[in-house]
Amino acid sequence: MDSIAISGVGLIGGSFGLALREAGFGGEIVGVSSPKTIEKAVARGIVTRGVSIDEAARRDLLFLAQPVSGIIATLKTLSATGAAPALVTDAGSTKQAIVEAAQGLPLFVGGHPMAGKELRGVEAAEAHLFRGRPWLMTSEPPPALRHWIEAIGATITLLTPLEHDRLVALVSHAPQLISNAIAAATRDKRSFGGPGLESMTRLSRSSYDIWSDILSTNPKEVVAALDQILDEISRLRDGVAKGDTEVLKASFSADSP
Amino acid sequence: MDSIAISGVGLIGGSFGLALREAGFGGEIVGVSSPKTIEKAVARGIVTRGVSIDEAARRDLLFLAQPVSGIIATLKTLSATGAAPALVTDAGSTKQAIVEAAQGLPLFVGGHPMAGKELRGVEAAEAHLFRGRPWLMTSEPPPALRHWIEAIGATITLLTPLEHDRLVALVSHAPQLISNAIAAATRDKRSFGGPGLESMTRLSRSSYDIWSDILSTNPKEVVAALDQILDEISRLRDGVAKGDTEVLKASFSADSP
Repeated sequence: MDSIAISGVGLIGGSFGLALREAGFGGEIVGVSSPKTIEKAVARGIVTRGVSIDEAARRDLLFLAQPVSGIIATLKTLSATGAAPALVTDAGSTKQAIVEAAQGLPLFVGGHPMAGKELRGVEAAEAHLFRGRPWLMTSEPPPALRHWIEAIGATITLLTPLEHDRLVALVSHAPQLISNAIAAATRDKRSFGGPGLESMTRLSRSSYDIWSDILSTNPKEVVAALDQILDEISRLRDGVAKGDTEVLKASFSADSP
Repeated sequence: MDSIAISGVGLIGGSFGLALREAGFGGEIVGVSSPKTIEKAVARGIVTRGVSIDEAARRDLLFLAQPVSGIIATLKTLSATGAAPALVTDAGSTKQAIVEAAQGLPLFVGGHPMAGKELRGVEAAEAHLFRGRPWLMTSEPPPALRHWIEAIGATITLLTPLEHDRLVALVSHAPQLISNAIAAATRDKRSFGGPGLESMTRLSRSSYDIWSDILSTNPKEVVAALDQILDEISRLRDGVAKGDTEVLKASFSADSP
């Protein structure tokens, strides 16, 4: 693998470039992003220059790290223009809609690095973002791609697109909406909350820009995950109502083995 | 106010002592706690010595900072023995059961400093714990008590015991149980979660020792608060199911004014 193109040089795309460099990748890395972002990414040594998506498609690997709707749009453009990149992978937060949109490509491996932080943009990119983190993939990646993902410290787990979307609905999408719900219910009483309430409402300050795509491409699994957590909350609610100390006590040791 | 007794010299009781000293309180501060805790509290300059509850009751102010069941037990002991401390206040997390148990005392003002941190015990006590934090009280405190609470940086808000229990059920008790529920639902998938899931499950690692008392003395309001948040979650669930982007978008700006 001699040349890589990153489409969407933000937190994830930029961190992927920095991580590759630190892991010893010696080939060229080019980027597809706005001129302003490319300027910052070049200054940080993440990419050597900005290119069009057509030119990016001629690299050995095209890594799509835009928001979900951007990834789907790029996949459709690539299919429509008959551009046939050797290998395309992505970092989108949902996988069923993306894998569906990639049907026309010669070789697409859906991916989702389970890493992130509160800050966004290329300014926040860091070489160690993926270290020790899971990298979910929808099919076995070619050896060269597996090599570099492992070289930057991530651990690959294979899941079908449906299994992926179910998992992230439970560990990410449903908790996000529950944070929003708690924020709404406590809105005018926030000043009386302590660090616990802050912890439970922090996610509600996330940007809808990103979540809009996620929720619209994974509604069924998000509803199922919310129902699962709602059941669990209702069980504890009934435990409080009935004074069932066993149920309540057990819920406090949920983290214990 | 020349002498103060603190019963339960842990995080809250210990911090109260340190804060009083820093604010210039020159009188004696004695403590009621286990010999081990008293030893540490004396070493940190929080109390001058350990005393019995009978002796503590003869101080100008008796501050009860045990867990809720300990506070209730102490109040019953004081009533039963006919000890009549001049002024008793507390730091318990629920107020209806405590104020009820204090009926037999000459002057009791229920209190609840909305401050805390993850660590417990006198080792974690700090002089600035109450600075900028609300201190809820169930009736107007005598001027000397108001003076010292304000001197240590807290802001007094008066609420009836019922209003208090409703408020804390919503901003503290219900969010705690929701964290437990999310932890239970994601238990075997935690390694795939990111910092968002960590934020939403952090509280589930709290100690049941403290929560047992809180939940058993405030069940009705906790159930009502959970129902309120459950309604809010269900509204978002339906928004996802129907693709109602307005409802979803608005939930992400719950923190905005």
